[in-house]
Amino acid sequence: MAAEKKTRHQNKAFGWAARDTSGILSPFNFTRRATEESDVRIKILYCGICHTDLHMSKSVIDFPITYPLVPGHEIVGEVIETGANVKKFNAGDRAGVGCFVRSCGDCDQCNESLESYCNRAVMTYNGTDHDGSPTYGGYSDTIVVHERYVFLIPDRLPLHSAAPLLCAGITVYSPMRYFGLDRPGLHVGVVGLGGLGHVAVKFAKAMGMSATVISTSPHKQKEAIELLGADRFLEAIGSLDGIIDTVSAYHPIAPSLGLLKAHGKLVVLGASKEPLQVPSIPLLLGRKIVSGSAAGGMKETQEMINFAAEHNISAEVEVIPMSYVNTAMERLAKGDVKYRFVIDVGSSLKAD
Amino acid sequence: MAAEKKTRHQNKAFGWAARDTSGILSPFNFTRRATEESDVRIKILYCGICHTDLHMSKSVIDFPITYPLVPGHEIVGEVIETGANVKKFNAGDRAGVGCFVRSCGDCDQCNESLESYCNRAVMTYNGTDHDGSPTYGGYSDTIVVHERYVFLIPDRLPLHSAAPLLCAGITVYSPMRYFGLDRPGLHVGVVGLGGLGHVAVKFAKAMGMSATVISTSPHKQKEAIELLGADRFLEAIGSLDGIIDTVSAYHPIAPSLGLLKAHGKLVVLGASKEPLQVPSIPLLLGRKIVSGSAAGGMKETQEMINFAAEHNISAEVEVIPMSYVNTAMERLAKGDVKYRFVIDVGSSLKAD
Repeated sequence: MAAEKKTRHQNKAFGWAARDTSGILSPFNFTRRATEESDVRIKILYCGICHTDLHMSKSVIDFPITYPLVPGHEIVGEVIETGANVKKFNAGDRAGVGCFVRSCGDCDQCNESLESYCNRAVMTYNGTDHDGSPTYGGYSDTIVVHERYVFLIPDRLPLHSAAPLLCAGITVYSPMRYFGLDRPGLHVGVVGLGGLGHVAVKFAKAMGMSATVISTSPHKQKEAIELLGADRFLEAIGSLDGIIDTVSAYHPIAPSLGLLKAHGKLVVLGASKEPLQVPSIPLLLGRKIVSGSAAGGMKETQEMINFAAEHNISAEVEVIPMSYVNTAMERLAKGDVKYRFVIDVGSSLKAD
Repeated sequence: MAAEKKTRHQNKAFGWAARDTSGILSPFNFTRRATEESDVRIKILYCGICHTDLHMSKSVIDFPITYPLVPGHEIVGEVIETGANVKKFNAGDRAGVGCFVRSCGDCDQCNESLESYCNRAVMTYNGTDHDGSPTYGGYSDTIVVHERYVFLIPDRLPLHSAAPLLCAGITVYSPMRYFGLDRPGLHVGVVGLGGLGHVAVKFAKAMGMSATVISTSPHKQKEAIELLGADRFLEAIGSLDGIIDTVSAYHPIAPSLGLLKAHGKLVVLGASKEPLQVPSIPLLLGRKIVSGSAAGGMKETQEMINFAAEHNISAEVEVIPMSYVNTAMERLAKGDVKYRFVIDVGSSLKAD
């Protein structure tokens, strides 16, 4: 059934795909569906490299992976075609696509524009679309997406450094809003200074908060403070209103709980296979909260993009050609990137 | 210094104390301070037996214990003397004392009437009072407490069944308010149907919520529904807005996380030495919260008492004479109580 439907896809597309658990990416020809009445067709110009892309490509995640896998869910580009019913977009618009390209549209989560929590949300890659075909991500020349799941990128945001906002940005922004860690005068900690953490510091400062970076890499201190505007690099016991923990590898969280004030909130953004070891006493005696967060819905993500534009916030990026992607993945695995790789898809992806 | 100050206590008092880690209680003569200018002197009429009393008496808790230990922090009685500056109370008033009898009065927590989170809060027993003397709890004939830490008990609340509100009641009421699990239409789960759990069900129903008891004791089902008003006894995956977990022994919490809807909140009220094992995926993908809570502040506790009076809520209790207290402790250790023991201090405590 899926195969039969897939054959209906008439539009050629081209990208780079992982073929097996080596995770090595190589050129890949495939098809995208024709632009349906509510669809937007986007020429991809830049795509950020998220840590998840690395984990998915190598299948080191609690998730079944289907190869060939075209990664990429920090996608920006230009609208080149719109379906007959599309209202939000016109050809020529600057557009973005994040972590998912569809949801059921009819559950409690969707009705509140919390689409990322919809049980039937379709991931931008390694998902199964409504027509049964596999979804392919942004390491490719074009993408076709229902307009509900496409964002407008304001003119004042540079496209290359806006791309990481679509995953890294919303993933830190959403919990800051939801957990009330967004008010002037609060003091927030950011654990880990990578693609997510460095944007969290920028948002925190733009929201008028005091921001402390908590990292086990002392060499990051100077840049955290001078480039990103962090106020401090280490923190004292019982001093923080909240912590955004962006570290994706397993690590102890009890020390972070200790840094929180009473009623403080620890938001964990990295999935680990091992359960978190949470001491109960700080939860009880300090009414501290441990939670997590998964990207954000369409409404909030657009709000985040607009907030970023208004405050001149975008990611610090290293722009690379597509041919460098496998090297970039190796460097990313070692944490050797400041702070996000972004693939210059528009000018470096050449069809075979 | 402490010893010297203690000698200034002129007023004889009498109660029952644990003398060592056997936890066995026996008659104990001691002194209470004279009524200071902001103090209220209370003749104790009833005192609930909290699980903490058992843990503290036997010293099976991560907490240094000083013997002799007079337990009891669910205290109700009658005001018999007031200091010159006391404004809230008059002799003859019905009064209550909960888990703490003093706090610093000047920190962020105290300023927001979150005294139970003050780092310098003085526990009602096994604490050290402002004059260096040890605090003794409510298994005794009288208590002297600064009026700030005394509650008014409305006339329509029976004293004996109101006593457990002062710890069990506020311990479940406070997180229901704080975490927003207090709105009509929400669906809350209550794990464990003991002293805390059975009051949580009553509050949940009075707040207009649907309440499900989650218990491993099937024989409690009939009473949970018929006596306490619970709607259900077991629950389906992904169906609850929040869970109040009142179980004090270590137990897995992953199943509870599974019962929560997206954005659901699990509030753990029992301290365990072992860290909680919290799977990260439900926190991330469902933005679920794990937290705890410690009693409540003075303002909120009085509010809870008034709410209970208004809705005719009090604990289901088994009133016992003081001479039965050691047997009651044994039964409590086995969970053999419906649902709270309350000592009839006023008519059964006889001085040697």
